[in-house]
Amino acid sequence: MKKHYSKKAGLAPGTIVHVGEARTERPKITLINYDRNNYEERVVEDIETCFLCKDSSSVTWINIDGVHQVDIVEKIGTHCGLHPLVMEDIVHTDQRPKMEEFESYIYLVLKMLQFDDATAAVTTEQVSIILGPSFILSFQEDEGDTFEPVRERLRNSKGRIRSVGPSYLAYALMDSIVDNYFIVLEKIGEFLELLEEDMIENPTPEILEDIHGIKKEIIYLRRSVWPLREVISRLERSESPLIEKVTMEFLKDLYDHTIRIIETAETYRDITSGIMDVYLSSVSNKMNEVMKTLTIIATIFIPLTFIAGVYGMNFEHMPELGWKWGYPAAWIAMLLVSVSMLMYFRRKKWL
Amino acid sequence: MKKHYSKKAGLAPGTIVHVGEARTERPKITLINYDRNNYEERVVEDIETCFLCKDSSSVTWINIDGVHQVDIVEKIGTHCGLHPLVMEDIVHTDQRPKMEEFESYIYLVLKMLQFDDATAAVTTEQVSIILGPSFILSFQEDEGDTFEPVRERLRNSKGRIRSVGPSYLAYALMDSIVDNYFIVLEKIGEFLELLEEDMIENPTPEILEDIHGIKKEIIYLRRSVWPLREVISRLERSESPLIEKVTMEFLKDLYDHTIRIIETAETYRDITSGIMDVYLSSVSNKMNEVMKTLTIIATIFIPLTFIAGVYGMNFEHMPELGWKWGYPAAWIAMLLVSVSMLMYFRRKKWL
Amino acid sequence: MKKHYSKKAGLAPGTIVHVGEARTERPKITLINYDRNNYEERVVEDIETCFLCKDSSSVTWINIDGVHQVDIVEKIGTHCGLHPLVMEDIVHTDQRPKMEEFESYIYLVLKMLQFDDATAAVTTEQVSIILGPSFILSFQEDEGDTFEPVRERLRNSKGRIRSVGPSYLAYALMDSIVDNYFIVLEKIGEFLELLEEDMIENPTPEILEDIHGIKKEIIYLRRSVWPLREVISRLERSESPLIEKVTMEFLKDLYDHTIRIIETAETYRDITSGIMDVYLSSVSNKMNEVMKTLTIIATIFIPLTFIAGVYGMNFEHMPELGWKWGYPAAWIAMLLVSVSMLMYFRRKKWL
Amino acid sequence: MKKHYSKKAGLAPGTIVHVGEARTERPKITLINYDRNNYEERVVEDIETCFLCKDSSSVTWINIDGVHQVDIVEKIGTHCGLHPLVMEDIVHTDQRPKMEEFESYIYLVLKMLQFDDATAAVTTEQVSIILGPSFILSFQEDEGDTFEPVRERLRNSKGRIRSVGPSYLAYALMDSIVDNYFIVLEKIGEFLELLEEDMIENPTPEILEDIHGIKKEIIYLRRSVWPLREVISRLERSESPLIEKVTMEFLKDLYDHTIRIIETAETYRDITSGIMDVYLSSVSNKMNEVMKTLTIIATIFIPLTFIAGVYGMNFEHMPELGWKWGYPAAWIAMLLVSVSMLMYFRRKKWL
Amino acid sequence: MKKHYSKKAGLAPGTIVHVGEARTERPKITLINYDRNNYEERVVEDIETCFLCKDSSSVTWINIDGVHQVDIVEKIGTHCGLHPLVMEDIVHTDQRPKMEEFESYIYLVLKMLQFDDATAAVTTEQVSIILGPSFILSFQEDEGDTFEPVRERLRNSKGRIRSVGPSYLAYALMDSIVDNYFIVLEKIGEFLELLEEDMIENPTPEILEDIHGIKKEIIYLRRSVWPLREVISRLERSESPLIEKVTMEFLKDLYDHTIRIIETAETYRDITSGIMDVYLSSVSNKMNEVMKTLTIIATIFIPLTFIAGVYGMNFEHMPELGWKWGYPAAWIAMLLVSVSMLMYFRRKKWL
Repeated sequence: MKKHYSKKAGLAPGTIVHVGEARTERPKITLINYDRNNYEERVVEDIETCFLCKDSSSVTWINIDGVHQVDIVEKIGTHCGLHPLVMEDIVHTDQRPKMEEFESYIYLVLKMLQFDDATAAVTTEQVSIILGPSFILSFQEDEGDTFEPVRERLRNSKGRIRSVGPSYLAYALMDSIVDNYFIVLEKIGEFLELLEEDMIENPTPEILEDIHGIKKEIIYLRRSVWPLREVISRLERSESPLIEKVTMEFLKDLYDHTIRIIETAETYRDITSGIMDVYLSSVSNKMNEVMKTLTIIATIFIPLTFIAGVYGMNFEHMPELGWKWGYPAAWIAMLLVSVSMLMYFRRKKWL
Repeated sequence: MKKHYSKKAGLAPGTIVHVGEARTERPKITLINYDRNNYEERVVEDIETCFLCKDSSSVTWINIDGVHQVDIVEKIGTHCGLHPLVMEDIVHTDQRPKMEEFESYIYLVLKMLQFDDATAAVTTEQVSIILGPSFILSFQEDEGDTFEPVRERLRNSKGRIRSVGPSYLAYALMDSIVDNYFIVLEKIGEFLELLEEDMIENPTPEILEDIHGIKKEIIYLRRSVWPLREVISRLERSESPLIEKVTMEFLKDLYDHTIRIIETAETYRDITSGIMDVYLSSVSNKMNEVMKTLTIIATIFIPLTFIAGVYGMNFEHMPELGWKWGYPAAWIAMLLVSVSMLMYFRRKKWL
Repeated sequence: MKKHYSKKAGLAPGTIVHVGEARTERPKITLINYDRNNYEERVVEDIETCFLCKDSSSVTWINIDGVHQVDIVEKIGTHCGLHPLVMEDIVHTDQRPKMEEFESYIYLVLKMLQFDDATAAVTTEQVSIILGPSFILSFQEDEGDTFEPVRERLRNSKGRIRSVGPSYLAYALMDSIVDNYFIVLEKIGEFLELLEEDMIENPTPEILEDIHGIKKEIIYLRRSVWPLREVISRLERSESPLIEKVTMEFLKDLYDHTIRIIETAETYRDITSGIMDVYLSSVSNKMNEVMKTLTIIATIFIPLTFIAGVYGMNFEHMPELGWKWGYPAAWIAMLLVSVSMLMYFRRKKWL
Repeated sequence: MKKHYSKKAGLAPGTIVHVGEARTERPKITLINYDRNNYEERVVEDIETCFLCKDSSSVTWINIDGVHQVDIVEKIGTHCGLHPLVMEDIVHTDQRPKMEEFESYIYLVLKMLQFDDATAAVTTEQVSIILGPSFILSFQEDEGDTFEPVRERLRNSKGRIRSVGPSYLAYALMDSIVDNYFIVLEKIGEFLELLEEDMIENPTPEILEDIHGIKKEIIYLRRSVWPLREVISRLERSESPLIEKVTMEFLKDLYDHTIRIIETAETYRDITSGIMDVYLSSVSNKMNEVMKTLTIIATIFIPLTFIAGVYGMNFEHMPELGWKWGYPAAWIAMLLVSVSMLMYFRRKKWL
Repeated sequence: MKKHYSKKAGLAPGTIVHVGEARTERPKITLINYDRNNYEERVVEDIETCFLCKDSSSVTWINIDGVHQVDIVEKIGTHCGLHPLVMEDIVHTDQRPKMEEFESYIYLVLKMLQFDDATAAVTTEQVSIILGPSFILSFQEDEGDTFEPVRERLRNSKGRIRSVGPSYLAYALMDSIVDNYFIVLEKIGEFLELLEEDMIENPTPEILEDIHGIKKEIIYLRRSVWPLREVISRLERSESPLIEKVTMEFLKDLYDHTIRIIETAETYRDITSGIMDVYLSSVSNKMNEVMKTLTIIATIFIPLTFIAGVYGMNFEHMPELGWKWGYPAAWIAMLLVSVSMLMYFRRKKWL
């Protein structure tokens, strides 16, 4: 939950300060340059190397893994004419997904999600995409990403992705992020199913923590997913010349996907609170069973012990003690008491 | 809950991959061809056979049961000029109900529901309908369907269904699906009533699972039903020439039906949470009764046992033990204690 | 909850099938004919008798109690030119309140409510009203109705109701139905007050069922009342020449009434869940009291019984047993233990 | 909750029948007449006396305390040309706050609230205000009111209130009612704070009733306050010539006040349910403590009593009984058992 | 919660009365005067000193700490031509955040928040900002503020803040207030994390109070934050010439920040109720454990004690007592009973 806001408080707006965790040691810059016929991909050391490509007739995609070295972001940002507030947001990794339209570029913020099976936690990574007239800039916090299939398609295919412009590439990147949400949701769904089975069989206090944990993860997940809907719907309705017509139809499909993701997240939230309710009831039921056991044992033996106690008294004048059949009679009395108690419990359906 | 999203992640959009379970072995293709005077129905082996009929002046309805063999969908889709994203959605059986308007056809996705009495589970089947200028394509996941009455009406009647065009047939198909929702809701309603009776009589932990189960089914049901409202309202407001004027009025009626279904689903949801509350209270009440029994027995006998214990002590100098009426006096004391306890409980209304 | 939907599934739309319970043996047809100066009222045997009156210059009101004999509805409907879907809805008694505007008539569905004091249940009866240019058709499920005061006013007064046209009569009928809602709500309010008193005094499990029952009734009530708001607001905004200007102002007043009814229903819902919460707490409080009693008795006597047990042991070498003051000393020890326990409980505020 | 709706059911709309409680014996009519220079105030016996003043060039304010004598309302209403439905609503004291615009006057209904400290109940009084071109009519149910400060300002000041027209007076009256809401809310806030303190210290069942009671009061309060927002916003947006321009700005301020009142009421509602939750938890915590006490005492003494019981047996061959150190050894065994139990409880943090 | 509304009730609108607590002894007036080249800052004793500066070509910022001395507010307000209702609101410290546009100035109300770590309470301070054509007035309740970084930037930088006009300064002030919200939220987040850890380890009743307390703080926080969204969005959409174009883009950024703050507040509210649920379950779990311990001990020893009691009876004819192996046999019986009980508990998974 810690976001180190204090680091930023009081600074002038537009000051470029990295907020978040540095997840890589050194930012890695990948430069991809392609048109219908050619494809070039290389890792560059120096951000200045990319400057040349940006304005070529081919499409240039510069991907930067790691935003903690703010000077790199500042250099490429300044070169591409980004607004200082945009640069500030790129390195401030606590943005909500958003879309901002400027005259010569569109700025997109999305969240890349990963579900960690071991801890049942969702980790979030901020991805910023700048869609320019002939280039795409993408900024990630960490190296591992969901863009690999896109790169693979760029390398191999000569199809749509190579022939349309940068807006289709931007769509493809967003699509790969959103596709990954389905996988995260699938894993959460499996986790919930496991939880459900465990819970009914054996509602231990550990399950309580698991339910609370997954509930929180779903709350955070919703925060990443809800604004996405607006982002894509605004892209779709945008009249920016940066978005080619052919991309539009695919954006509609992407919008559909986000709706489905939101609905699934809402469903999981409902199911989680259902599980919580069942857990609480299971605990009550367990308690009930424990109490019944105690009550049955206690109410049977307490009267018996009383009878035994009576004939353990030391009064000199206790006629029963002298009777020949006194002892068996006491046993019979005790048997009668316990049998009638058992019958009472059976009638109450406690046995 | 499993949806095998991972199968699709990373593929180019428009790639036609079946997502879901193959429910039939071989897709079954039924071709119906009719106009005001003629009616022809046959099962065809090969999808190409249907190509001839599509453009005849009569209405052609091609129904395909089973979408897991993607090549069939691809062939007929390409022949009818469907958008690749539409074909992708037809074989991806996790769509939400939706309506997409294209220039030469309308694409509809609906969910066919079945309530399984044995498991109290709702099973969902995706139905895709393509409404073209003189043809209807319908895709189902499985063979059994709710379209039989529509076919029956086509075969027998010479009425409206035979004289209006394909838009009325599309309406009739949707109407048969929606009509079936009422039956599913009716069954859920009966299940809830049984649950309610059981619960008050005997709130066992099994009922808890039943409540949780039906709650989840209603959550899933709502996901199928809510978007339907928008689908039909958009159809109604559509200005597509594909929808004849006479169909419009019937769509208004269908819209009414969906509203009623949504309201009933909401009512059931409210009632289910009401049942959950009552269940929890019943468990508490049961616990209360158990505790009362224990408390009454224990508080009556514990003092008595104490009295018996006192006169079981072995002190040499215990004057009471030598008294002639000591033993009866002890009994009287014990009786007094128990009677006063019983009176106290009666005053508290515990008996 | 049973609605016999299955009866209708698969039939062609516009098929006139009675859905619901037949509440009367034979439909009763009442024909009223009036203008500023004349008033005629009679029960007719045959629906055809009414055909003559319909187009006279006076206002004709045909009221039919019982819709299970579909041929009557069909005859009068066909004579008045009603749409088949309207006739279908009249005999299908599970409509939601709605208003449908046709060229030559307006079709209104409302729900007449009755609160049964004995079972605390709300019974619903569907009322369909057809407002034509010079006639009103009204269809009820049962004979007893809330229209009697309207008839009384028609018979006696020469005021507004006799001088304005059929739209004012339609308003008067709706007003009498809505007025009756207030009475139903008043009775529910009284029931809730009784429940509240009972509950705090003596939270028995029967009250739980009562709360759950009234909660369900309020849920069903809301379903009848909420759509009414839209019905009347649409009537008010309608530009149909069938609605005279003088009626309009009265519709505004009626709209006000429905808002008040909706608000009261919402309030009752909130109060009911408040009562449920208090009930649950009362049960917990009762349990607490039971447990306290047990705990006080048990914790006082268990140590005492132990002391008595110790001196009931049969060791040969137990010096205390031979002491002269051993027995009184044991009593004093026991007294001290019990007094200190009582003081502990008093300090904890359990006594 | 009783509203005597039954009194009205079946009457023709526009019938003037008093609904509610008669709170004064005889209605009191106060006539105030003022302009920039003159001020006249008197109590009149007969409503006809007021007729003369109504059309003078000065502003006339007729205040009537008590609406149960319907003839007074009818006389003045007819004289001022009020619609019959307006007169009906004035004497029907169960209106929701509303604003109705007529050609020559505006009709306003508001609720005057009083918080009764003794019973922690909010009492409601209906106030109807008629804003005419040169007069104000105000109807209250009871004599005591919140208008006294307005009268005081009229009497003393020569400022805005005397120089602007009747719309400003209407505003001043509404403002005095709304100002009073703040006082009611403040008292509810204090009551909630007391409740909170009590609850954590000593959660008695009486507090439960208090929470439920105040919750209900807040529900009723909301019903008076929510519609107010719309009333004032509609007044503000009204283009009626009856509302002077200078009044408009003050209405905006009043609107602000109602928003604040609504927000405070919502906050109180949230806090009340928070208190309910804490109450329930406190009850559980108390129970826990009771159970712990019982468990500790019982689990310590039950084994000890068993040991004492063993050596109280009367077998002839029990070697321990003859041992010299048998008795002290038994004590040591009992001490060991109780010490180990205590250590176990300490480890569990129950002590 | 106390707001002393009673102080104001009945006064004429526009009467300037301080509502709230006087937090400083004497209001402190700071006058800052700057343009691109010059900067002057001083504390003035007399508000009249500021009058000269207001209309200079440079930007004048008059900051007043303490609004309880109403004459100061009145003097400067009158000098700047503020509406009486604005002056009333400045000294009435219970406003909701709002924005009011007048012809020659914009009036803004915001809330400055501080989180007190010791009491886990959020304290609120009202800040009023008047944005005029060449001046800014700011009113605070107390001396310590979050404006210091803005002053620092004014003093040092020659950048944007010195070259743009008063609208940018107003933005900078609002930004510093909103930035501070992030810090408050961060602290609440940390508090919630601590609470969560504590709760699972040891759910004491104190934690209950903490949860309730923080829940209330979040409720109050939301009241300060929600209206902010509208304030800034209205500023953004305002067409007032007072707001320079360059400021507009920064306001969009500020709007983004408020959305994020609102979302975080909502998340915290959800998490708090999650924590409450877990707390309740933990209490139940603890109770369960206590009850299990009692039940195990009691159900093992009660039968044993009964057996011991039987052979403590004093019947003359009890053959077992005379048996040589009677005593060991009793022990064996008792061992068998306890072992079988333990096995039963293990099978139930209670051990």
